[in-house]
Amino acid sequence: MRKQTDLDHGPGPTIRPLALNVVAGGAGFIGSHLCRALLEKGESVLCLDNLQTSRASNLRALEGHPRFRFMRHDISQPLPAELTRMAPRITRVWNLACAASPPLYQQNPEHTMMTNVVGTNHLLHLAEAAKARFLLTSTSEVYGDPEIHPQAEDYRGHVSCTGPRACYDEGKRAAEALAFDYGRAGRTQVRVARIFNTYGPNMDPNDGRVVSNLICQALRGDELTIYGDGSQTRSFCYVSDMVAGLMALMEADIDGSDPVNLGNPDEMTVNELLGHVLALTGTAARVVHRPLPVDDPRRRRPDISRANEVLGWAPKVPLAEGLEATCAWFAAELAAAKPAAAGFAG
Amino acid sequence: MRKQTDLDHGPGPTIRPLALNVVAGGAGFIGSHLCRALLEKGESVLCLDNLQTSRASNLRALEGHPRFRFMRHDISQPLPAELTRMAPRITRVWNLACAASPPLYQQNPEHTMMTNVVGTNHLLHLAEAAKARFLLTSTSEVYGDPEIHPQAEDYRGHVSCTGPRACYDEGKRAAEALAFDYGRAGRTQVRVARIFNTYGPNMDPNDGRVVSNLICQALRGDELTIYGDGSQTRSFCYVSDMVAGLMALMEADIDGSDPVNLGNPDEMTVNELLGHVLALTGTAARVVHRPLPVDDPRRRRPDISRANEVLGWAPKVPLAEGLEATCAWFAAELAAAKPAAAGFAG
Repeated sequence: MRKQTDLDHGPGPTIRPLALNVVAGGAGFIGSHLCRALLEKGESVLCLDNLQTSRASNLRALEGHPRFRFMRHDISQPLPAELTRMAPRITRVWNLACAASPPLYQQNPEHTMMTNVVGTNHLLHLAEAAKARFLLTSTSEVYGDPEIHPQAEDYRGHVSCTGPRACYDEGKRAAEALAFDYGRAGRTQVRVARIFNTYGPNMDPNDGRVVSNLICQALRGDELTIYGDGSQTRSFCYVSDMVAGLMALMEADIDGSDPVNLGNPDEMTVNELLGHVLALTGTAARVVHRPLPVDDPRRRRPDISRANEVLGWAPKVPLAEGLEATCAWFAAELAAAKPAAAGFAG
Repeated sequence: MRKQTDLDHGPGPTIRPLALNVVAGGAGFIGSHLCRALLEKGESVLCLDNLQTSRASNLRALEGHPRFRFMRHDISQPLPAELTRMAPRITRVWNLACAASPPLYQQNPEHTMMTNVVGTNHLLHLAEAAKARFLLTSTSEVYGDPEIHPQAEDYRGHVSCTGPRACYDEGKRAAEALAFDYGRAGRTQVRVARIFNTYGPNMDPNDGRVVSNLICQALRGDELTIYGDGSQTRSFCYVSDMVAGLMALMEADIDGSDPVNLGNPDEMTVNELLGHVLALTGTAARVVHRPLPVDDPRRRRPDISRANEVLGWAPKVPLAEGLEATCAWFAAELAAAKPAAAGFAG
């Protein structure tokens, strides 16, 4: 992946790109879509990823793009000198880095916490040095198992800070606190998106989320797993809508502002989602029920009034359409004899 | 302060102390009382402190004690090799390190967050390497501006993770999350105390807490400052009671357990406290009102049922008695021509 691109040039004949984006977590599900959208917009992208839970194969289509570069790095560790030296040219810093599914982020809770807190701080330092704008992807998990519906941004949440999900939930809350402190002190311009459930191509088939779980189980003809009785609700946003929301938020003129929920307010039960997947895949596999994980939220629906008002944003892709695209992508992934990720040398 | 004591001896004729305590924040208000109590119990104490908001003068009485040693260090930085080499002899690690009053911890919110998260992680690593038991002093601030009264440990709190107090409140919540993750993974035995308002000798006269503010203003004949209308409530625990609670919690056989509130459930308004201070000092100074700080909690009272049940602990010192001792101490402090702290070379 390390090749001569216009990102590598010092002063010289190459036209300097107007916008250089650092996208931490850019090999992840949402991150890879964001990288592509920024390139399509004509900007340059430096993708930073440790490939812990993200997939280099997500970047296959971007490899070799003249305005794209990949740097393998774990943001919980001090940033590479090569990156910090590029600060004068960096205009935007996006933090999408952190394992986001409970089974994965709970494998090493200390690392999850450090990624969110120390990693965010490293990127805030970079943004400050670069005089770049900074966007943190926070999460609906900062609301925990919410007691009000839908969740607006001023809801303070219902999070257990002692349970097995706390490394992520509290890590993100701490990352928000850090970001807003940088903003208040005028150290850098900050934007905080609270991302609700998102789905689409490039999801990790094995990360244990309900959409990918059900689709992959259906496509493989495996039993379909429902945790609890399936009456818990979720709201699913298609990834292209999410990326449009993130880009609108980064560019919006709302300094010193509050966090902004991004997600699809179309709430449904997990059983309803199951119905869609069964219809779409035509699987005859049976459904098995397993116990709800500890602190699993019972309901989750974003109030997106603020995003609507300040960004003019709302999701556009209907669930049926998004699920169909997602199913098609998973079918192609599963059909591929071997994962292609191995060929990617970051 | 660096002198030959039994803490410095390697193998040799010196009798190895049965218990070596590392007390981070040991020069602080509660920390200094804890150090003294541990020494009085016959144990050894290695006090770790950056002297950021704590006062070396708090340790004056311990200086030269053969089982006491001071090491100046900021726990947000990697621990000194000299300390980590002592791990095999360390039996208890206490984390009382962090600026705790809003004006002070808000001076450098990034450092406050890093002290709580990275600092706690450094000490957890030390405890793990030492196979020592670890105690985190968390705070009633994890409940934020609570919506239920009194606050029991299973209340998830009402904290703003975006406001100016978040660096402390969310830092402590993240520190709790880390500690319980170490505990769940069997990496070290953890204890988490949620400390409510505490007062007594060795408080910093300038740290902006209501008890020290009012007493010092009264003793100096200054105007007495009440934030808001004074109807907000607090519950004040005398420091000797708090230290007894912390020591009971550290030694209690409650592995894998939950956090434990420590504080005095005797709730009063700030105006009632003011009445006590006026009566005790006989000041004729007038009272001025100032606006309530952002996110200032309106009510705060611990439910100490769990401490009662699992530790057999309850506070014993009545407010009148505690306030009298505190006033006497502040009077002596203010009378001293110059602060004596300068003489202490940590």
